[in-house]
Formats: sequence, structure tokens, C-alpha cells
Amino acid sequence: MTPNTNYQKLKESYLFHHIAQKTGKYLEENPGTKLYRMGIGDVSLPLAPAVITALHEAVDDQAKKATFHGYMPEVGDPELRELIRAFYGTRGVALDLDEVFVSSGASDELGDILDLFGPGQVSMIMEPAYPAYVDANIMTGNSVVHVPAGKENGFLPVPADGEKALAEARAAGEISGGPDLIYICSPNNPTGAVFTKEKLTAWVDWAKEKDAVIIFDAAYEAFIEEDLPHSIYEIPGAKECAVEICSLSKTAGFTGTRLGYTVIPKTLVRAGLALNPMWVRNRTTKTNGVSYIIQKGARAVFTDEGQKQIHQNIAVYKENGRVLTETFDRLGIWYTGGKNAPYIWIQCPGGDSWAFFDRLLHEVQVVGTPGEGFGACGEGYFRFSCFGSPEDTRVAADRLWLLLKEELGK
Amino acid sequence: MTPNTNYQKLKESYLFHHIAQKTGKYLEENPGTKLYRMGIGDVSLPLAPAVITALHEAVDDQAKKATFHGYMPEVGDPELRELIRAFYGTRGVALDLDEVFVSSGASDELGDILDLFGPGQVSMIMEPAYPAYVDANIMTGNSVVHVPAGKENGFLPVPADGEKALAEARAAGEISGGPDLIYICSPNNPTGAVFTKEKLTAWVDWAKEKDAVIIFDAAYEAFIEEDLPHSIYEIPGAKECAVEICSLSKTAGFTGTRLGYTVIPKTLVRAGLALNPMWVRNRTTKTNGVSYIIQKGARAVFTDEGQKQIHQNIAVYKENGRVLTETFDRLGIWYTGGKNAPYIWIQCPGGDSWAFFDRLLHEVQVVGTPGEGFGACGEGYFRFSCFGSPEDTRVAADRLWLLLKEELGK
Repeated sequence: MTPNTNYQKLKESYLFHHIAQKTGKYLEENPGTKLYRMGIGDVSLPLAPAVITALHEAVDDQAKKATFHGYMPEVGDPELRELIRAFYGTRGVALDLDEVFVSSGASDELGDILDLFGPGQVSMIMEPAYPAYVDANIMTGNSVVHVPAGKENGFLPVPADGEKALAEARAAGEISGGPDLIYICSPNNPTGAVFTKEKLTAWVDWAKEKDAVIIFDAAYEAFIEEDLPHSIYEIPGAKECAVEICSLSKTAGFTGTRLGYTVIPKTLVRAGLALNPMWVRNRTTKTNGVSYIIQKGARAVFTDEGQKQIHQNIAVYKENGRVLTETFDRLGIWYTGGKNAPYIWIQCPGGDSWAFFDRLLHEVQVVGTPGEGFGACGEGYFRFSCFGSPEDTRVAADRLWLLLKEELGK
Repeated sequence: MTPNTNYQKLKESYLFHHIAQKTGKYLEENPGTKLYRMGIGDVSLPLAPAVITALHEAVDDQAKKATFHGYMPEVGDPELRELIRAFYGTRGVALDLDEVFVSSGASDELGDILDLFGPGQVSMIMEPAYPAYVDANIMTGNSVVHVPAGKENGFLPVPADGEKALAEARAAGEISGGPDLIYICSPNNPTGAVFTKEKLTAWVDWAKEKDAVIIFDAAYEAFIEEDLPHSIYEIPGAKECAVEICSLSKTAGFTGTRLGYTVIPKTLVRAGLALNPMWVRNRTTKTNGVSYIIQKGARAVFTDEGQKQIHQNIAVYKENGRVLTETFDRLGIWYTGGKNAPYIWIQCPGGDSWAFFDRLLHEVQVVGTPGEGFGACGEGYFRFSCFGSPEDTRVAADRLWLLLKEELGK
């Protein structure tokens, strides 16, 4: 037997490995130095008190025969599904209960959802991007078409950029058909850029015209404060062309607690096959549902008290974003994000993103993420995260100001 | 775009739907009647106190910034992996830490593991079997060769049975190559039959000869009390041909709490590709690990106290098995399982398994599972589960004795 040979086509991702190596070496040479870690994509604040209470209650339920929960419905606890459905209602999006699926998190679901499509699809991935989009598609035998974004389009590509990338891939003999799948992450990781209704409408219309399916990653929607779409289903026609994958990881600090949700509208049909019942069949075959304990904890996120508490945490991260973007504004550095997203994507003074990384590490002990790690078009850019502590973020911002103000003429 | 058309090849599973329909109708016609449910595959006893304590501690950890856990390692918490590694040591199986992966449960992993192999594999599934084995393979585009078991081999097929099934599938034009994957569940669901070292050695040798990979489902290993293999790695050579998938669902009552573990030896290599690093890459791409809370709870299972407590629960289920098998012994009914497994698989008096189901429901209000639902060769057999309450199991056994003793000449 021959195992899945697609794994041999994967490129090693050296991004976080290199960062760890470089910071490790620096600390070895400069023992005891404090680093200001502005690169992390993980949250730092604990779970909301309402969630903690619900989790404890759920654990107690599992301790007594009368309240013990065995196998859960594979597609999710009906009470939690109803709360998520109602939450979409507050965004003006009407869903049926059975269009909502509970998952172990967005990253799990972004990989698993490819089961619905089978090998050989042409997947368009807007870059810079979360590296797992590309790898999951390569593993499953799909062709990846990279749609580069840049400063000229505010890191928000339009369908014409997609057409161009497709034409180039066809000319290079890399693909024949397609597009089949279109990945959109908004608010975006790593750029923090957010698609407007108008820009998202263009993609929805294009996907429908091309008979493609949009995989919409809404993991950062809770950070939106302006009038921008939280859900792709705010766009007319999206229920005929999009799957939406969301998560409590960044919304409610569930990165290590694990819970997400996926929406597959019943009106999403391709080649006569409705994707919603296929996903029900997939989940009932390939999972036994998400932990009762975690699902009960997640229910608390969607209560009034839970929403209030999680937004207190989000406000802390947003204040970090304000502190950093204010500094970049004063320095005259071009950036996207920071306002409606927990990431800030700056154009590196000096250009080279790894040189900028080394300089920040060695001169001001600030650690960020070189944009090159998120795709070739990320070179020359740099990601700052808003998930650090407010104290460290303040110091990092001050140090960046002092380091760069003179050369930038401020 | 065309979605995965393999889903159209799936057969609907009517087993549990039919059972629910029939019992529902009976209760409608006989309101208030108590049913003795001996069909359930879910546990009924709560989690062990040591696990509950650890789960509460883990929830408290998530409430404070100093102890909060974000993203966990995708392959599992190192402390838990070490405990599982040490647990295998008590079985005489030496593993490296990085051969152990923590999962959300066996059913999740049994589906996901197929990612390692890609479409077009010839998968041999010994029947009667857990229906998800077949469906997961069909979804992914593999060919399924059903290897029937029966009374003549004690529901434990030998490689010659596999050869015969392969030859028939080849003659029918259903497959060309293979075998690639061989599914073995021991102790078996639904039959409760357990492979001896000798019988398992025959499969390991055959798999190696054929260059195939065994997927060994050890979900019920904790129920073994005789000198029978708990792990396939007790068999020499298995580390060169087998993946083992295990779960705390039945061992520690985690059906609704969700945690399992998978072993992929580093010496498992096919066509020059080592499966262990491929699985690391799969997990780091397609998951963000299992919930910190649940992993901390699972750690308690592997402590001395935890092991003692979970075996107290298992002893309750085993006593149910004793009560039922004693009745079948007195009635002279042929069966497998019940001793080293939580299932008992009886030959139906009268033959037809759905007729026997109806008779038990209507005459003695006992609900079991017709064997036909686990594959064609299950017709004429019937599964009883040992996971019910001791009180109900006692009543069910007494009623079966009274119903059948005269016609069976006792």
C-alpha cells in the first residue's frame, strides 16, 4: 500500500520555528532580558466568570447518575445550537436550527470541511493567509491558487485579482477547471483588514456566477466595531454559495478550551447535491460530538451576562490595538487592521521583514511576526497581535516610537 | 463545482431509527410501560470522583490569568501523553512519547486517520462491524471488502477468510489491488469476541506479508480479564504494520466527555513514507488539540486512584454481563462475549433477528439490537449490552429466562 503522497508536496513552515530559534538564541546571549511578545496569536485573559460557573456545573452534572451525559448529538447540543441561531438573529441573519453545527473549533472544521468536496478541487486562497488553509488543501489533493493581496488593494483582493491568479495558474498548466473553493477570512489573520459589504458582495456574486463555494472564516468577527459584515450571510445570495466557520477561541478566549460553530445553509447546493445533509452524515459518521462539559460552558457565552463579560476582555485587546495603531499613526507607518480586528499589519520601515524582526528583537526586545511567513506577498510587512498584556503592549509601543521616530522624521 | 460524490454511495443505516420507531409505537400503544433497554451502547455510570476533581481544578485554572491555558499542543498535552505511554508499559508495550497522540475520541480518530492513506485504498472490514468503519471508507473513496464472520469461526475471522473475501471482490470486478487497510476491533463491537494472541499474530503476519496496515480499534480493552491481548503491540511485528486507536469512552465513561488516544509507531512505514510524522503534520494542520480541561480530567484516569475507581464502574458492567450470560448458559443459547467485553452476541432462538426484537419488546418489554444492523452476516444474531443499570439487567435476564425456558426445553 502507498500512503497519501500529497503530504510530500507540503512545504515545511519555518515561521514560528525560526522565531523561536532567534528569540531563544537572543535570550541565551542576553540572559534575564525581558521580551515584549507582540507576535502571539493566542489569547492571554482567562475565561469569563459566567463560562467558569457553567463549566463547573457541567462537571458536577457528570458526577451524578441522574444528571450524567453520555453521547451528545454529533451535530451539537440543541440548546447551544439554538443560542447560536439566535445570536445570528441579532446580526440580522435568519438561520434554521439544523443549519448550525457545533464544532471543536474553527481550525478543526476548516480542515474537516474539505471532506465535502473530495480531491481535485481548485481552491483559491487569498494571501497573506493562515498557513493551514494551504496545507489542508494540499493534503487532500486539491490545487491551490494563491490570490495575492497588497497595499494597492488594502489587502482586500477583488474578483479581478482572483481572475488574474486563475489565468496565470491555467497558463502555467497548474490547473484546468475551477474555481471551486474560495477562502475568505474577514476580519483577516494576519492583516486585520475587513471586507466591506460592497467588497464581499462582489465575491458572493462572483462565486455564484462561477458555481464555486466560499469558505468564510469569521473567527475574528467579534472585534468588528464599525458597520462592516460580521457574517457573510449579511450579503444577499450568500446562503446559496457560502459555508461560514466561526469559533469562540478569540471571541471568548476558548483557544485552549475548544469550541466553534459552522453554518451550512440548506440552500447551498452544487451539482444537485445539498451540502447540509452531507455534513450531517459526515459528522454522524466521523465524530461523536463535542464534549458536554465544553458545550455547556459555551452556552454561557451567549447569555446577556456572558456577552457582557467577553466584551470586557475584547475591550482590553482593542485598547492594545489602539495603543499600537496610535504609535504607527504618529510614526506615519502604513498599516491595516487594529480597529476591527486583533491584528495590525504594518509595512516594515526598511522593507525586509526578517531584518525588521531582528532589529526589533535586538534593539528594543519586541517580538513580532514577519509577514513573509503568511505567503510570498507578505514580504515587507509585519504582524503585531493585540492579545498581549496591556502593560507589555504599552512598553512595546513606547520602544517602537523611540526606535523609529528619528529615521521616520518625527 | 461538484461536491464529493462518494456520499451518494452511502447506504442509509436504519438500525437505530427502526428501533426507535418500534419502541416509540409500542409505548404509544402501551403508555406508561417500563422498557428494559439492553441495547444501548452508551455508559450509564457517572465519571470517577478523581476525574471530577481534576476537571474542577482544570476549570479553575481557566479562571485565572496565572494558570490559564490557551492553545494546547495539537498532538496532546505532554503530561497526558506520558501517562498513556506509561500505561502501555504496564501492558508490556514500550512506546516512545511521540508515538502517542491524544484525540477527541476513537470515533473521531477512526474517520480522520483515513487522511493518511488517501482515496482508492482497499479496506477489509470484518463483519459484523461498527457501521462507521464502512461509511468513513466509502466517503473517502476507498473500496470496502466485507470479511464475514460467523459461528463457525467464533466470530473471529482468520486471514484465509480475508483471502476468500478478496478473491470474491476481485472476481466481481469490485477491486483490483489490495488489501491496503485491515480493520480489527478486539474486544469486538458488536460480538464481544476477543482475538487471542495466536489469532492476532496470524493477522499481523498476513498484514506484513501483504504490505497492508491494520487499524486496531481497542476501545473495549479495559473489559478484558483473561490472558488476551489488550493492545496489538503485544504481538511481535505489530509496530511495523498497525495503528491502534483507543478511547476513554467505555473505559472511564467518557462517551459525552470525549477523549481518546492513538498510537502510530515510528517504525510503521509504507512505500518509504513514515506514517508517524505524517500524522503530526495532519494534526498540526487540521486541529488545535483537545480541550485543556478534558485532558487534565483524563490525566486522573491514569493515576492509581483513577484506575481503581474506573475499574469499580467496569465491575458493575461486568456483573451485568455475568447475569446475562448465566441466563443464556442456563437456556443453552449460543453466544460470544460478555466476559472480556461489554457486549453479548447471541444466536436468536427462532432465527430472524427483527422477529426476535419484536417478540422481546412485545412479550417481555426488553429492548436489544438486531444483529442484521451490523452487516449481512449478523442476521440471526442479537446484541445485548452490559451498560444498563444492574436492576434493569436483572429483570431483563429473569424475563428472558421465563419467556424462553420452555421452548428451549429447560
